[in-house]
Amino acid sequence: MAAWQVALQLSAGDQPLFRQIVDAIAVDIARGRLGVGGKLMSSRALASQLGVSRNTVVAAYEELCAQGWIAMEPTRGAFVVGVPGTTRGYPDAAGFDLPAPIPMTLPAPRREGMLLLLGGVPELRGLPYRQLARAYRSALSGPSARRLLDYAHPQGNLELRTALAAMLASLRGLAAPVESITVVRGSQHGLYLAGRSLLRPGDVVAVEALGYRPGWKALELAGATLVPVAVDRDGLDVAALEALATTTPVRAVYLTPHHQYPSTVTLSPERRARLLALAEARRMIVLEDDYDHDFHYEGRPVLPLAAGDRAGVVVYFGTLSKSLAPGLRLGYVVATPAVAQQLAGYRTAFDGQGDHAVERAVAMLLEDGEVQRHVRSALKAYRTRRDALCAALRQRLPQLELEVPAGGMALWARAPGIDTDAWERRGRDHGVVMQAGSRFTFDGTPNEYVRLGFSSCSEGELEEAVARLVRALP
Amino acid sequence: MAAWQVALQLSAGDQPLFRQIVDAIAVDIARGRLGVGGKLMSSRALASQLGVSRNTVVAAYEELCAQGWIAMEPTRGAFVVGVPGTTRGYPDAAGFDLPAPIPMTLPAPRREGMLLLLGGVPELRGLPYRQLARAYRSALSGPSARRLLDYAHPQGNLELRTALAAMLASLRGLAAPVESITVVRGSQHGLYLAGRSLLRPGDVVAVEALGYRPGWKALELAGATLVPVAVDRDGLDVAALEALATTTPVRAVYLTPHHQYPSTVTLSPERRARLLALAEARRMIVLEDDYDHDFHYEGRPVLPLAAGDRAGVVVYFGTLSKSLAPGLRLGYVVATPAVAQQLAGYRTAFDGQGDHAVERAVAMLLEDGEVQRHVRSALKAYRTRRDALCAALRQRLPQLELEVPAGGMALWARAPGIDTDAWERRGRDHGVVMQAGSRFTFDGTPNEYVRLGFSSCSEGELEEAVARLVRALP
Repeated sequence: MAAWQVALQLSAGDQPLFRQIVDAIAVDIARGRLGVGGKLMSSRALASQLGVSRNTVVAAYEELCAQGWIAMEPTRGAFVVGVPGTTRGYPDAAGFDLPAPIPMTLPAPRREGMLLLLGGVPELRGLPYRQLARAYRSALSGPSARRLLDYAHPQGNLELRTALAAMLASLRGLAAPVESITVVRGSQHGLYLAGRSLLRPGDVVAVEALGYRPGWKALELAGATLVPVAVDRDGLDVAALEALATTTPVRAVYLTPHHQYPSTVTLSPERRARLLALAEARRMIVLEDDYDHDFHYEGRPVLPLAAGDRAGVVVYFGTLSKSLAPGLRLGYVVATPAVAQQLAGYRTAFDGQGDHAVERAVAMLLEDGEVQRHVRSALKAYRTRRDALCAALRQRLPQLELEVPAGGMALWARAPGIDTDAWERRGRDHGVVMQAGSRFTFDGTPNEYVRLGFSSCSEGELEEAVARLVRALP
Repeated sequence: MAAWQVALQLSAGDQPLFRQIVDAIAVDIARGRLGVGGKLMSSRALASQLGVSRNTVVAAYEELCAQGWIAMEPTRGAFVVGVPGTTRGYPDAAGFDLPAPIPMTLPAPRREGMLLLLGGVPELRGLPYRQLARAYRSALSGPSARRLLDYAHPQGNLELRTALAAMLASLRGLAAPVESITVVRGSQHGLYLAGRSLLRPGDVVAVEALGYRPGWKALELAGATLVPVAVDRDGLDVAALEALATTTPVRAVYLTPHHQYPSTVTLSPERRARLLALAEARRMIVLEDDYDHDFHYEGRPVLPLAAGDRAGVVVYFGTLSKSLAPGLRLGYVVATPAVAQQLAGYRTAFDGQGDHAVERAVAMLLEDGEVQRHVRSALKAYRTRRDALCAALRQRLPQLELEVPAGGMALWARAPGIDTDAWERRGRDHGVVMQAGSRFTFDGTPNEYVRLGFSSCSEGELEEAVARLVRALP
């Protein structure tokens, strides 16, 4: 086994040479550049290469030995043991009697050759990466750099709130003064925060019977008792909600009225009006999750419920995860200023504040129209992809019953007589990730539906994905 | 009143001209560049300036009118009304019966001339702003840019966890494999997350009787019942904790053993050993908040309790808020891999994941030694400032009883016979912000102590701050 080649550059700073050597080797081990069992150069050779005294290197090796990174074997030299602790047999959490665990949500594998038909996963090719980096640099080079890295306002960077207010007013008919906007770390964060600051333990929250499970989890963790209400072609069954509210004190309703998640239907105008009236009459909080507002293909997007809210009952959740990128962790909650203040108070206790430097950079992208440009280009691409997916499905899987969705990043199709859970599983084996309907039912019951996202695949990839789905049919 | 000068640049993109004009004006109103009551240019003049048809401008003005941004007065033209909604008389949250509000924590006013003697507020002059911006750009320009802006691992960017592992091993004697590290949004986020995922509602958590109130709030919100335990010159009174544990099931203890917050004392070696033995025997979780580890002036920093933990009872909280900047919102929790997984699961439900692009950028600053360089330079500055503050106090306020702290960013002084709450209030009027002891007592009881931070003021500013404190004496 060849000895490790040291990549270390000693600097003349005030860090002792000995410490620099220890750190460099520890970092190489931790990063895996220097694998377990790997042999280090002899202390003599390393000393000569670095031009330092051999004693310095010996002392560094001894320190690494004492810390457990390496071991010295008398005649053979120094070998890598690994990152200390990994080898020490860390005790597990047994004996702690922890609360029920929540499975970690790991990102879907964007691995070579795997095609992701996941709604809600945006296309990240073509993002304004350079513009974002430039905006960040610009934020950190101005006179306000210090302010942006300091303790700051829990509702978020004022410039970003201003840019969002302008966008909401001009594109979504939403009158949102900056004090009514709280910038959060994505919809998940906003929902948990709203649940925790607006609900009391045990409060009943009505949710769509086919809906967004991570959102439910956030509300549940915040203490809510969830009750499902049916969804049909016109969205949430508001009459059923009304009936429920006569027998149960329904404190809030959580819904996705625009492109209903997962069925993509739009809440009908009659139901919108009826829901707002019901909420006003009963002081029911309407948690409106408008996660992919921008992506509407037939005419203009439908305005949010919040745009018609004259009673201050709607708490509106928007996100930049779809229109820009999920990794930025930027969403926003719009509510009356009093409710916004309640959210912000709880926010200080949960995570203090957001990252104002990134928020400022994204504000610049909004001010410069970069976000809007990206959305327009994504919108065109998604429309084409939607049509390509529908065409491929109609040709290759004519047994599927589907309607072309007016908006969103996925379609919802009925697969009569097919075990969709099995299809999903087999799909993965065939290199395509899609979601069976059971992922969206309130109690996990299987159904005959599948959700097929089209936003993150090119047309060619969609063709291929459908071919794989055909092969994967159970 | 002069008419507003339009700064609008029309672009030949696919956004209609009419929409571009609407957006530009709405943004200017939202940003306050175009104030309420301000007069817009006539549609004719604007059309001529922009080189578009007058009808386009008229349509834009009509849309702005319909949305409530501006009003048209027949003979006088168009005037700014304001951001729609602000003028509409938003209803407040009355009728919602919300949970108890939490006061928003707003940042201390770094306003012109105000001197901040706040411990925990780092010096932000001299931060490696350019290097950070460069690292961010580098992260977003490499082949991994897409991955960094995508859905990602809830425990945080692997490169950052690796760099932290190397730092913890080499500087804090802490053997932390990457799977034991969860990158969070600062200590506050980490504490809340730990409280929520490791404790059950009502669980008793012992806290330092003089301690960190925001941390208490996070644990309380997570459902904990807090019980104070005394602190003396050797830190937390471990014998008292032992006694408490014989009568009450103490599930966890939250403490700041290094530079105790607020008293700056260090937990004695005997008590450290005794605490670890107690925790191991009773399976008590030790929540160790090591918020300003790096800033130790006399010899080497004391190793964390976590470094001596062989039983997996310590959950260790570190932060980059002090060693780099609070605005980055970066902290980390180190625990056994099993506990780390429990944290990460809850994290997915609370806020999904962190911002991996910023995390990667900070990893580069750690890999390149930029953070370490900044810490070394801050350490020197803080030591000098500590000494300057002590000298000024001894000279100008000899009645204060103080000891030079071995570490940290503040000193803790007894002011016999002085109403320290009044002194704090009067201080603000005299342009100096410091903290009275009542901010750190478990029940808010006043005491004779004050906490005076020295980290964010130059020596000259400290001199002046002490002069103001003298004038502000009640």
